[in-house]
Amino acid sequence: MRQSTYFAPTMRDMPADADVKSHQLMLRAGYMRQVAAGVYAYLPLAKRVIHKIEAIVREELDRTGAQEMTMPALHPAELWQQSGRWTEMGDELIRLKDRHGRDFVLSPTHEEVVTMLIRDGIASYKKLPLNVYQIQTKFRDERRPRFGLLRGREFVMKDGYSFHDTEESLAEAYQEMYDAYGRIFTRLGLTFRPVIADSGAMGGKDTHEFMALAEVGEDTIAYSDASDYAANLEMATSLAPTPVTPTVSGTLEKKPTPNARTVDEAATQLGLASEDILKALVVVADDALVMLLLRGNDELNEVKAAHELGVKHLRMATEREVRDTFGAEPGSLGPIGNGEVPVYADHATRAMTTIACGANETGYHYINVSPDKDYTVQAYKDFRLVQAGDQSPDGQGTLQFARGIEIGQVFKLGTRYSETLQAQFLDENGKAKPFYMGCYGIGVTRVLAAVIEQHNDDNGIVWPKAVAPFAVHLLCLNVKNEAQKQLAEEVYAQLQAANIEVLYDDRAERAGVKFKDADLIGMPVRIAIGKRADEQIVEVKERHTGAQHDISVEQLIDWVKDYLK
Amino acid sequence: MRQSTYFAPTMRDMPADADVKSHQLMLRAGYMRQVAAGVYAYLPLAKRVIHKIEAIVREELDRTGAQEMTMPALHPAELWQQSGRWTEMGDELIRLKDRHGRDFVLSPTHEEVVTMLIRDGIASYKKLPLNVYQIQTKFRDERRPRFGLLRGREFVMKDGYSFHDTEESLAEAYQEMYDAYGRIFTRLGLTFRPVIADSGAMGGKDTHEFMALAEVGEDTIAYSDASDYAANLEMATSLAPTPVTPTVSGTLEKKPTPNARTVDEAATQLGLASEDILKALVVVADDALVMLLLRGNDELNEVKAAHELGVKHLRMATEREVRDTFGAEPGSLGPIGNGEVPVYADHATRAMTTIACGANETGYHYINVSPDKDYTVQAYKDFRLVQAGDQSPDGQGTLQFARGIEIGQVFKLGTRYSETLQAQFLDENGKAKPFYMGCYGIGVTRVLAAVIEQHNDDNGIVWPKAVAPFAVHLLCLNVKNEAQKQLAEEVYAQLQAANIEVLYDDRAERAGVKFKDADLIGMPVRIAIGKRADEQIVEVKERHTGAQHDISVEQLIDWVKDYLK
Repeated sequence: MRQSTYFAPTMRDMPADADVKSHQLMLRAGYMRQVAAGVYAYLPLAKRVIHKIEAIVREELDRTGAQEMTMPALHPAELWQQSGRWTEMGDELIRLKDRHGRDFVLSPTHEEVVTMLIRDGIASYKKLPLNVYQIQTKFRDERRPRFGLLRGREFVMKDGYSFHDTEESLAEAYQEMYDAYGRIFTRLGLTFRPVIADSGAMGGKDTHEFMALAEVGEDTIAYSDASDYAANLEMATSLAPTPVTPTVSGTLEKKPTPNARTVDEAATQLGLASEDILKALVVVADDALVMLLLRGNDELNEVKAAHELGVKHLRMATEREVRDTFGAEPGSLGPIGNGEVPVYADHATRAMTTIACGANETGYHYINVSPDKDYTVQAYKDFRLVQAGDQSPDGQGTLQFARGIEIGQVFKLGTRYSETLQAQFLDENGKAKPFYMGCYGIGVTRVLAAVIEQHNDDNGIVWPKAVAPFAVHLLCLNVKNEAQKQLAEEVYAQLQAANIEVLYDDRAERAGVKFKDADLIGMPVRIAIGKRADEQIVEVKERHTGAQHDISVEQLIDWVKDYLK
Repeated sequence: MRQSTYFAPTMRDMPADADVKSHQLMLRAGYMRQVAAGVYAYLPLAKRVIHKIEAIVREELDRTGAQEMTMPALHPAELWQQSGRWTEMGDELIRLKDRHGRDFVLSPTHEEVVTMLIRDGIASYKKLPLNVYQIQTKFRDERRPRFGLLRGREFVMKDGYSFHDTEESLAEAYQEMYDAYGRIFTRLGLTFRPVIADSGAMGGKDTHEFMALAEVGEDTIAYSDASDYAANLEMATSLAPTPVTPTVSGTLEKKPTPNARTVDEAATQLGLASEDILKALVVVADDALVMLLLRGNDELNEVKAAHELGVKHLRMATEREVRDTFGAEPGSLGPIGNGEVPVYADHATRAMTTIACGANETGYHYINVSPDKDYTVQAYKDFRLVQAGDQSPDGQGTLQFARGIEIGQVFKLGTRYSETLQAQFLDENGKAKPFYMGCYGIGVTRVLAAVIEQHNDDNGIVWPKAVAPFAVHLLCLNVKNEAQKQLAEEVYAQLQAANIEVLYDDRAERAGVKFKDADLIGMPVRIAIGKRADEQIVEVKERHTGAQHDISVEQLIDWVKDYLK
């Protein structure tokens, strides 16, 4: 492809409104342009990368026997009302009316439609398991679209859905997809971690998110430095410490802690460390008040707490709810004399060697507290937010934190959609049963951005070979020099004949501009035809390492083929 | 692919609401399902065909140097307001508001967005010509979605746009796209005609539509039986007849024609043939009244009349407008004594040997009319609707009528969009000029339906090899027979190893069901493993001709390869 008439408008200046690297680079290097907030046009260079990402995704999914189809973007509202998501999804769901006033959804995902299709198309367990997928444009009205392709309102997703007669069959497909995703992201040149994630609002069970590690990631993950354990912060656990019996140096005693509204303030007034104070938090778990105890220097993980308590909704109680129930301010609560409110304690509280706690009387704490004797709990659970340095729950290594971009997710939906949409099959005994379902997503355009986040330097993008728009960037440094021009055309023809994808900079620009643009655009191999053209020598630069080689034209194609292998 | 777990739910009964063959067959054979009126899911079989259509489209466009990109479906309303189409497109344009209340368009086409991108990305004539395209889902809120994929509300289009510094450059690209389209539709196995079409509301100049010939087509085309002349009925012309001097057997005379409201009624009362009467029609051409004269047995072609008169809008005058101006009913109008209203006559009126016409007095006609003497016209023009049997305008053959499905269109937009959206480049002299633009569309999903309309028989679809979902349909007639089962598995493995796409019917169904389904689904080659399995003999049937062959397994792969060439 000749760059002189290629539509890749580069920008000299840093785009003002782009605050992450991938967004900046894709704008500067002419890969994309914004059409509206969170809505982009993918220019020819980006389109080539997207094709390659899609091809890898298709290849690995087809290997598993998954079948590609395409479902529409317009869905009748009735389906979403039936599943309950018409209301659940709120403002993120783009709605519209057709000319007859009928309500439609511009779809962000396809559980409803695929469940309807399978319900109407598959009657018997004999056709199961079934795994279908599509690569398709999705719409989501983000409140604050940002970071370019990382959080847009129109984006490309691979979404897949599997249907099963048993939970075991679902578990097999889940594992198969998990493995396929690993292969896909590896081939795409990404550094990633599959992490345990929260099934939350989707209403399913097991789920893993695939996280590309990157500073700009919006999610924090905790991972072991010595095993493959990794989880989203909201789901991360650590090894529970060995319980100890606290040293109680005196009798239970109430001490004034005037105006102590935090654990730290109380600790200071009591002459103790924060970790010696029981942090008592009151939450509303599915409408019931519950007191949760944490070690003073720990934080509550609400997601884990909801899971551990087995409730759907969990929120912090308001100050008013606290005062009405305990007759004390939130800073003075504790498990002793707290009325009928059930108490749960985090495992880490069992490792406390000294214990003080609020007295349920504003401005007072108890010291010399003995668990079991002075207070009892319903159960010890895991609801603390893990901290860097905690022991990994598998006992191997300690936890570290990293930021990640969610590029994929595998999810056991169970019967959430087949039940609400009455999708049933007949089992071996002719009995109607709801399908077990899994769903599997990859953010195709988000992957594009994530690859750039992981593969760039100060000069521009550094494409991995597998997804580079072109393998080779051929520069004719001075198009007015006859020898250079002729050799460049010759090399261009040779590369094309060898089926090597090449972008040919045949523009009437200065050499410096061409070198700068080549680095910015980021092809793996740069071939510059310059002063040594009359000797049939070209200069080859590896974008990845920066290594440069003078190579004779005769050996060039072999060198390139070899390098690209 | 094993059919036992392939998602292609066939239907035994004719679907009730499908009234064209392609729609019926795609539903019955499990290629697609409706999700809402005019909105479909493409199941795995159809998806395979779509991939093949797209690959052919890409290959031929890439050959011309056109560059693929992807523009978004969501467009800010401002762009469409600027181009004027926000109002022009009326109810067909799907509109929506985002969470902040901003207006968006769900796009049916991309002239606005691409013009904006090129405006902002291309500054100089040096980067021209430029030809970009995308293959993308489009949305159009059809008043009456029907005929399955032929008139849907969500469909896949290839749309392309070219940008030029001169009209000549545009003409070159237009011809290049015209030729590429011919290659594409030929490779897709379609019988088609490029026809001269009306540029109408798109506001451009030259345009050709590519019509797949089919009875269900919504458009009528007129074509020569002896040349490649073809045009939409609304644009078709014929050779103007040689002018004659009418025989006038007496003097101009006014005759009563009471209650004659049509040419035929007047002719009967006057004892003349309809073709002897001047049909005088009054139209409103850009707000001015104009009288048009046709031979009595001809019909007005309003599109041609507007073009010939050089006006943008043309409509029939109302009866009231006629009465107010002429003081007579529409059935009694003529060019004699018609006041100040300008008169244009169709060429065919010059071939009339006897002429009568309305007297502009209700219930009266003139006979013995001499043109030039009794009335004059501003000019003779071509605005009659052609009739089958007319001479082709190129003088070769006569016109025939056929029905067609519009599968593609090439269009010279000129500067319609670059002017309204202020898209300019600098020419060689540094002068700012609006881009000349062309646009080029192919209805990908409509092509899918058109291929089926042209390739089916009473038993089902008969795919052309180039776009068949699978090349081979392999049937194991009795999966309980060990020899058959074993041979079928062997042949399946051999076909896969030879890279031949194969759908393998391994279902526990009767042979009759399998044969019926194979015909319905329509793969080019059917291989049945049956009674002669123990002799290593299989039965091969060519779907296209119905020819059957007993072939030894040893020779099978070579036979298939050879047949598919």
